[in-house]
Amino acid sequence: MIKKERIQTIFSNCPLDTEVIILKNGSDSFIDKNFFYTTGLNQGIFEGCAVVLFPDGNVHIIVSSLEEELAKKTDASVHTFKTRKELSTVMETIIGKSDKIGINASYLLYSDYVFLHSIFKQKEFIDISKIFDYTRMIKDKEEIKNIKKACEIADKVAEKIPDFISKGMHEFELAAEINYHLQRFGAQKPAFETISSFGSNTAMPHYAHGNKKLMNGDFILCDFGATINNYHSDTSRTFVYGSASSKQREIYETVMKSQEIALDTIHPNIQAKKIHQVTYDFIEQSKFKGCFIHSTGHSLGLNVHDPGVGFNFHCDEILKENMVLTVEPGIYLSDYGGVRIEDDIVIRSEGCELLTTSSKSLIEI
Amino acid sequence: MIKKERIQTIFSNCPLDTEVIILKNGSDSFIDKNFFYTTGLNQGIFEGCAVVLFPDGNVHIIVSSLEEELAKKTDASVHTFKTRKELSTVMETIIGKSDKIGINASYLLYSDYVFLHSIFKQKEFIDISKIFDYTRMIKDKEEIKNIKKACEIADKVAEKIPDFISKGMHEFELAAEINYHLQRFGAQKPAFETISSFGSNTAMPHYAHGNKKLMNGDFILCDFGATINNYHSDTSRTFVYGSASSKQREIYETVMKSQEIALDTIHPNIQAKKIHQVTYDFIEQSKFKGCFIHSTGHSLGLNVHDPGVGFNFHCDEILKENMVLTVEPGIYLSDYGGVRIEDDIVIRSEGCELLTTSSKSLIEI
Repeated sequence: MIKKERIQTIFSNCPLDTEVIILKNGSDSFIDKNFFYTTGLNQGIFEGCAVVLFPDGNVHIIVSSLEEELAKKTDASVHTFKTRKELSTVMETIIGKSDKIGINASYLLYSDYVFLHSIFKQKEFIDISKIFDYTRMIKDKEEIKNIKKACEIADKVAEKIPDFISKGMHEFELAAEINYHLQRFGAQKPAFETISSFGSNTAMPHYAHGNKKLMNGDFILCDFGATINNYHSDTSRTFVYGSASSKQREIYETVMKSQEIALDTIHPNIQAKKIHQVTYDFIEQSKFKGCFIHSTGHSLGLNVHDPGVGFNFHCDEILKENMVLTVEPGIYLSDYGGVRIEDDIVIRSEGCELLTTSSKSLIEI
Repeated sequence: MIKKERIQTIFSNCPLDTEVIILKNGSDSFIDKNFFYTTGLNQGIFEGCAVVLFPDGNVHIIVSSLEEELAKKTDASVHTFKTRKELSTVMETIIGKSDKIGINASYLLYSDYVFLHSIFKQKEFIDISKIFDYTRMIKDKEEIKNIKKACEIADKVAEKIPDFISKGMHEFELAAEINYHLQRFGAQKPAFETISSFGSNTAMPHYAHGNKKLMNGDFILCDFGATINNYHSDTSRTFVYGSASSKQREIYETVMKSQEIALDTIHPNIQAKKIHQVTYDFIEQSKFKGCFIHSTGHSLGLNVHDPGVGFNFHCDEILKENMVLTVEPGIYLSDYGGVRIEDDIVIRSEGCELLTTSSKSLIEI
């Protein structure tokens, strides 16, 4: 169950003298997803736990007794600890004479760095976060299978959203319906806090939902995803309650067209930022200049916002086969409303494959 | 909307020469909840964003344009940035001549520490994470109001669980029902990944749910909570499907009795670890020695596992009025099953007030 191949790939990309890698989780939500990436575990929280990786693919998991039984479902060596003192003693024994320790600075708390440094004062730490990011950018078959399943579930829910809508319903009630159906269709959980915003609230891309009641003529923006074995989908659909005004229709069609341009431009060997450039340029040249206020997409995997590659102006990364990303242009008019259309794709040799395929025609409910 | 009083309390507990505090969020789930604690924001993600706090309660929020509109709902000064370079320039301007900078090492990524250090090479960083933890241990009226509301919703769901149960249902279906009702009753979202385990899976405290079908005689363990304005409840109830065996009844009654002992012992001015000691001792002296494998409870607030105080052997903290904690003893028999009974309490002058009050008698469904 341990992902030996992934671990060997990581070491093969590391500085040659990296002898061992330590990943240390923080509390609560400060959990390094590489803990799951390398151990293959798909249940559990593993707060405060650590994993030690060796170049031959050997793995030691250090957990509290609370999650010992879960950790033992892997073929890793499992150690338990009760106190920080015990944790450091176990780590010292495992690390032994290894001198160059890889750490993942992007997902390691500063307080944990100080803790590790206090145990291994004489050893050298090498930040290999970029290696983790780089390795995880390209998904293997099992990862794509999980994401595909998560996308299928999101599609099923997307198709049902018009049935959930009723006059005067509240935003939070629609979120409840979306989440319920995600889970009924087999999602481990919603991938993130589902967005179901109405009317002018749709102008705020990260507003989730509240007590606002649905009114005639409102945009309805739903952004949601499913989690399968810790992998995610992430899709958005926007609807109009009642008849769309010509302005609403124009916004919608501009976003839809910009997404088509993005999808047509995506292929291997192009820089990620070029995808954002063409999408952004199209909206800037429309009536809605200045209204596309986020990136065109992000990598998707164990994190909803996976590291390494994204469709934004700062990403020089070259697109490669088996990268999985979202494509999600949007137009937001303050105090009026917004439209976002978001799909998940995997990059294939000939271009990109859409993983979410629910209808994108403007639906007036 | 900015929480000036909280900010002033934090500074009053800081080393006297702390001139300014910077909180910096990481990506995705690596978000310092003190961002919300100090700004009063209750919507948004604020990935990669920063907040700068001054002793007079003045606040600067530095966000991407994606969340500018949300941030402007506060009375803080709002600045936007597109690149890390812009972020550092804005921060330099805001910090100005202040020399001693407080940081929260417990929720700051090591990579962000390196980033801050590169901007403010000449300045001194002071880790004030313990001050945040200490301040947040004691909840103010607004916080308790939010947690109470979250508890009321969890109670309503707990009372309905027996109605959700049907022969041969899967664990994930029960999770879906629980989450749906949490949201229909007004929760912003479930507080964490709902646990709904059946049979021998109940022996793993952090196993969430899977495809296991409900069988006659199974324990059903549900651990869930509601989120209200980013505050959480966290409650567990265990049921038996069919008639409880005498062994199941004995486990259940031992856990229930141990929780009563804990609740009776909680009062201000006692050390937190004493609560765990009496609870643990009671189970150790029963037939189920060695089967209580986690702490008796944790602080509850903006984090489900809030920092600062907990009912465990290592916590020397003295209980004080308006601390909010869970009380959740459990007994787990590997390959057989487990029972956990969990309630949320607030410490009052005379002892503790139960915030979750749904029935705890053994229910055979």
